[in-house]
Amino acid sequence: MRTRFHQSLDLLKEKLLVMAGFAEQSIQRAIEAYRTRDMSLVELVRRSEPAINRLEREIDAAALDLLAMQQPMAVDLRFILSVIRINADLERVGDLAVNIAIRAREMTQMSDAELPVDIPKLGTLAAAMVRKAIEAFIDGDAALAQRVLALDTEVDEINRAAFRALSQRIKQNPAETPQALNAIMIARNLERVGDHATNIAEDVIFWVSGSDVRHHGVGTDATLPEEQSGVAPIF
Amino acid sequence: MRTRFHQSLDLLKEKLLVMAGFAEQSIQRAIEAYRTRDMSLVELVRRSEPAINRLEREIDAAALDLLAMQQPMAVDLRFILSVIRINADLERVGDLAVNIAIRAREMTQMSDAELPVDIPKLGTLAAAMVRKAIEAFIDGDAALAQRVLALDTEVDEINRAAFRALSQRIKQNPAETPQALNAIMIARNLERVGDHATNIAEDVIFWVSGSDVRHHGVGTDATLPEEQSGVAPIF
Repeated sequence: MRTRFHQSLDLLKEKLLVMAGFAEQSIQRAIEAYRTRDMSLVELVRRSEPAINRLEREIDAAALDLLAMQQPMAVDLRFILSVIRINADLERVGDLAVNIAIRAREMTQMSDAELPVDIPKLGTLAAAMVRKAIEAFIDGDAALAQRVLALDTEVDEINRAAFRALSQRIKQNPAETPQALNAIMIARNLERVGDHATNIAEDVIFWVSGSDVRHHGVGTDATLPEEQSGVAPIF
Repeated sequence: MRTRFHQSLDLLKEKLLVMAGFAEQSIQRAIEAYRTRDMSLVELVRRSEPAINRLEREIDAAALDLLAMQQPMAVDLRFILSVIRINADLERVGDLAVNIAIRAREMTQMSDAELPVDIPKLGTLAAAMVRKAIEAFIDGDAALAQRVLALDTEVDEINRAAFRALSQRIKQNPAETPQALNAIMIARNLERVGDHATNIAEDVIFWVSGSDVRHHGVGTDATLPEEQSGVAPIF
């Protein structure tokens, strides 16, 4: 039988999964809004943000209570700290989805432009990173978390290529500057979604194994060729 | 006399202040590198990043040990959790400094352009936000932390104005696209430094008062006119 403490941990985990579901859904809707120009999706993304923020505070408060009341040790302590960190990452993913949705809406007021960037592909990849990181969290699967870290390199490369191609487009066709700038910013936001998924994967590894795998690469701005964003696989 | 536990808390605080000093110095050096085109500063920023990352891990490990060994309650628990969060924010500030420094270096390979953005002013403001947030942390000063939250609005507005002016410049003078894009990205990075200072200020308020002041505004992307980035003063 589970102790009352472990039931509380299960409940905390469940709440974080709801949070993850919201965050992932927001990203998917934002990408869909970009692809289809469906403005009702933009509204959905914007309206779900306060709920995500409320849930973040609720999860933080529950985690803090558990720390204060139960004084957990070792793996349980690491689990609760991971929940606090993952919670913050998911909330930022929700913010990024709002940014993307609003930029998608702005683009409907500009003339169509055939841009050299596959935003839906980048978005699908970034959303998949979040989903896999959360799967790794559900199963306490450090190997799956490691694979998320490897995916970040791919997202960074696509973002870098998009930045180069869109800059070139702006130079050649200044009339498309607003559209291309918006696409650069959306790609950048998606790259940051990938960074948050990376953080979540690292927290899973920290929780399961107790090892700190951060900073085997450096940097955050994947449009810079020299920097390695995210973390290289260590296995 | 301080107990051994409280001596450990003091030591943790000291380490975090060293971390904050590194992060603030990196931002200042990166801005100076932009202003003076002094490439030795770019190198200094890049080389100090591994040290910042090491210190982050060291502080995290120390905080975790204190949580595990001492099972602190109430205000001490909130203090340690705040240290963990502030630590992560400072490390990101260090990453952003590296991004800015590398972009400053890229700009030396481009022809000079008189750009409609005062990066040093924005940078000085963002660095001041970090410094004031840390001062608020040192003194446990919630009122000062509140003033940091108000400064974020100013940083966001400068960043938004810079985005508009630089987009316009690109349209009118496509030959300056690379310079203007780099300036947009640097301004965006500085705006994110302000966001991290805001996070730190919120953590100080959380530690001192136990209240959670997050999400009285929403959004992260200050180049979007509709979003409020950061948090409105609640007093």
